[in-house]
Amino acid sequence: MKVYLDNNATTIVDPHVFEEMEPFFIQKYGNPNSLHAYAGETHPHIKTAMEKIYAGIGARREDSVVITSCATESNNWVLKSVYFEQILTGKKNHIIVSEVEHPSIIATAKFIESMGCKVTYLPINAEGLIQAKDVEESITDKTALVSVMWANNETGAIFPVEEIGNICAKHDVLFHTDAVQAIGKFHVNVQSFNVDYLTLSAHKFHGPKGVGALYIKKGKELMPLFHGGAQMSGLRSGTLNVPGIVGMGRAIEEAVKSLQYEMTELRPMRDAFEDELLKIPNTFVVTPREHRTPNTILISFRGIEGESMLWDLNQAGIGASTGSACASEDLEANSVMEAIGADEDLAHTAIRFSMSRYTTQEEIDYTLETVLKAVARLREISSSFAYAPEGHNSGLVAH
Amino acid sequence: MKVYLDNNATTIVDPHVFEEMEPFFIQKYGNPNSLHAYAGETHPHIKTAMEKIYAGIGARREDSVVITSCATESNNWVLKSVYFEQILTGKKNHIIVSEVEHPSIIATAKFIESMGCKVTYLPINAEGLIQAKDVEESITDKTALVSVMWANNETGAIFPVEEIGNICAKHDVLFHTDAVQAIGKFHVNVQSFNVDYLTLSAHKFHGPKGVGALYIKKGKELMPLFHGGAQMSGLRSGTLNVPGIVGMGRAIEEAVKSLQYEMTELRPMRDAFEDELLKIPNTFVVTPREHRTPNTILISFRGIEGESMLWDLNQAGIGASTGSACASEDLEANSVMEAIGADEDLAHTAIRFSMSRYTTQEEIDYTLETVLKAVARLREISSSFAYAPEGHNSGLVAH
Repeated sequence: MKVYLDNNATTIVDPHVFEEMEPFFIQKYGNPNSLHAYAGETHPHIKTAMEKIYAGIGARREDSVVITSCATESNNWVLKSVYFEQILTGKKNHIIVSEVEHPSIIATAKFIESMGCKVTYLPINAEGLIQAKDVEESITDKTALVSVMWANNETGAIFPVEEIGNICAKHDVLFHTDAVQAIGKFHVNVQSFNVDYLTLSAHKFHGPKGVGALYIKKGKELMPLFHGGAQMSGLRSGTLNVPGIVGMGRAIEEAVKSLQYEMTELRPMRDAFEDELLKIPNTFVVTPREHRTPNTILISFRGIEGESMLWDLNQAGIGASTGSACASEDLEANSVMEAIGADEDLAHTAIRFSMSRYTTQEEIDYTLETVLKAVARLREISSSFAYAPEGHNSGLVAH
Repeated sequence: MKVYLDNNATTIVDPHVFEEMEPFFIQKYGNPNSLHAYAGETHPHIKTAMEKIYAGIGARREDSVVITSCATESNNWVLKSVYFEQILTGKKNHIIVSEVEHPSIIATAKFIESMGCKVTYLPINAEGLIQAKDVEESITDKTALVSVMWANNETGAIFPVEEIGNICAKHDVLFHTDAVQAIGKFHVNVQSFNVDYLTLSAHKFHGPKGVGALYIKKGKELMPLFHGGAQMSGLRSGTLNVPGIVGMGRAIEEAVKSLQYEMTELRPMRDAFEDELLKIPNTFVVTPREHRTPNTILISFRGIEGESMLWDLNQAGIGASTGSACASEDLEANSVMEAIGADEDLAHTAIRFSMSRYTTQEEIDYTLETVLKAVARLREISSSFAYAPEGHNSGLVAH
């Protein structure tokens, strides 16, 4: 059996999405910026897709939703634009991000830090959560931007972006949220709270790779990251990726339609799976379920290296991860586990299972069975577990 | 009949290319950076595609070919990286570009100019060509970069990049060429001359939209434009666009295979078409054929607004353009016609026909017939042509 439980890394393209994209490779291939019928025949499809994307996040007509190539582009764009417009010019000198942002925020923050910007990296607490009060305490009159993700890719932890948005508005500081892990997991509406910029990525909600977007609230326009032919109202130049845009439109429509399913079907399936996993002795889950996306479990099996568990799962046809795919090649400890102060042993034992609307109960049953076997086998050969099975729990409690 | 003659704006995706991309949407959708079989099954396909892209431009194994989302990204990357590393730091203060670069170079140059960098905009001569000596005369000891396109998107004019590359090497100045209009039109080999950076775009050679690349010579690494998860050896972060990369690989392979056809079949078809067009009185082509890509004709019909001609062509099912699609929405005069100093009337009369290996003789015959009718109709109603049919030729000669 093949089981894909790495949906926070990327997702299968919904067959309806693919079907909708397909005509734009060979049949309707015109450049939308040209002045002839080959261009014109793409226009209604782009318009419809854009309307779906606007609707999918509740954007108003007067706001901008700008298509980008991925969330990494959207995130770089926000931080670098703020750098050019506010830091380099000396107007402000400080930004705030959480220490568990996606690498595309952390690495960009470190880059602009190297160019002279002060950066505050907000800590997470033992439950893997950001405290809104920490944002307020970190803001100075020189703070240009706060960037805090809506939901964490590793734990699924949902951060208090509404509260943070209010704090930013109060202090007249720009607020950006990376909502890559939020779309399709719960209701996202940019009008329901104060947010200036919001990042999304199609391939995280059963759309194609190579297309993302950035929501920009009216009046909060950014300096372009891509200068050029002035596509996307001059905000992001480059020939429009027509199949990508059409695919993203359909994907967000399907993702929003499936929200009810995520809550009423997927979440209970995840919860029951997690209950069974937690019956295994010495297992730990960081973030309480009520503060998590419905599809994610980050769980530590004390004494078992994450990579060893992945190996056993992979041998059985199951794809899971030890954390962010964007940081997985270097085999470092899980960054959230490190951020909560877990001891080195435990930090290396985290496994992330991230489900989707395509996940079945049969797949979960098979995965549970495989995990049980793997735990038995790996703890049998684990020197660290044999040595201290109950030791050093670092304040973590089994949920 | 439908005829597509706007291949310098974008191209139909080769059905073989689409066939090769298709499995990577629904069947093999893993994130290549993950650590399981869903990732692993993409690896050989990415490797093969990258080998084809390296081979397609003659890159050495030790060089970097970095996948981007489009040529606009690649071009912004080069100029902005040079800005950060050399201009902002005060090491250098000057770059050189041609005045007929793609908007993604011109607009980026103007941006860094606004940030304090000196920019020389090299003129083109009456034949629409760049003079290598102008590059040499413009270089100072503070020049960081020269960026001159290999082939112009509007005229098809081929610029002397080998000579310019030698000049840059002699003066220890970085050299970038935007080769978007070169790939698939003639032989491109980065080892055959001195070039540090070279931009390509899949959708200009029958690959998909939303994927491009930047060649970076070993030792000439750039500061990333996208910081993040350190994909592409840390040079360009962001989840790999697997279908895009696979498609680009196949597309460049097919483009290189078709080079012989471009020279022996397409060029004579273009030449014969052009001969017939030039039999129409008061028509002008700027760049001599021997200095042009085999697929492009930029022709002016005195007294006929380019947009009027496009309208008639479009009514007949023919897609052509008045110049760059990336600048076509604003209905300005053709930028090359302006750069050569054509009078305002003539600058607005340019029409670009850009063919591809999918263009047939039957389509060309039909287009010629349509143009003849359109010229007759439009000159009949043209006030400017009635006034001065033979006047103000601005030093242009009919080719």
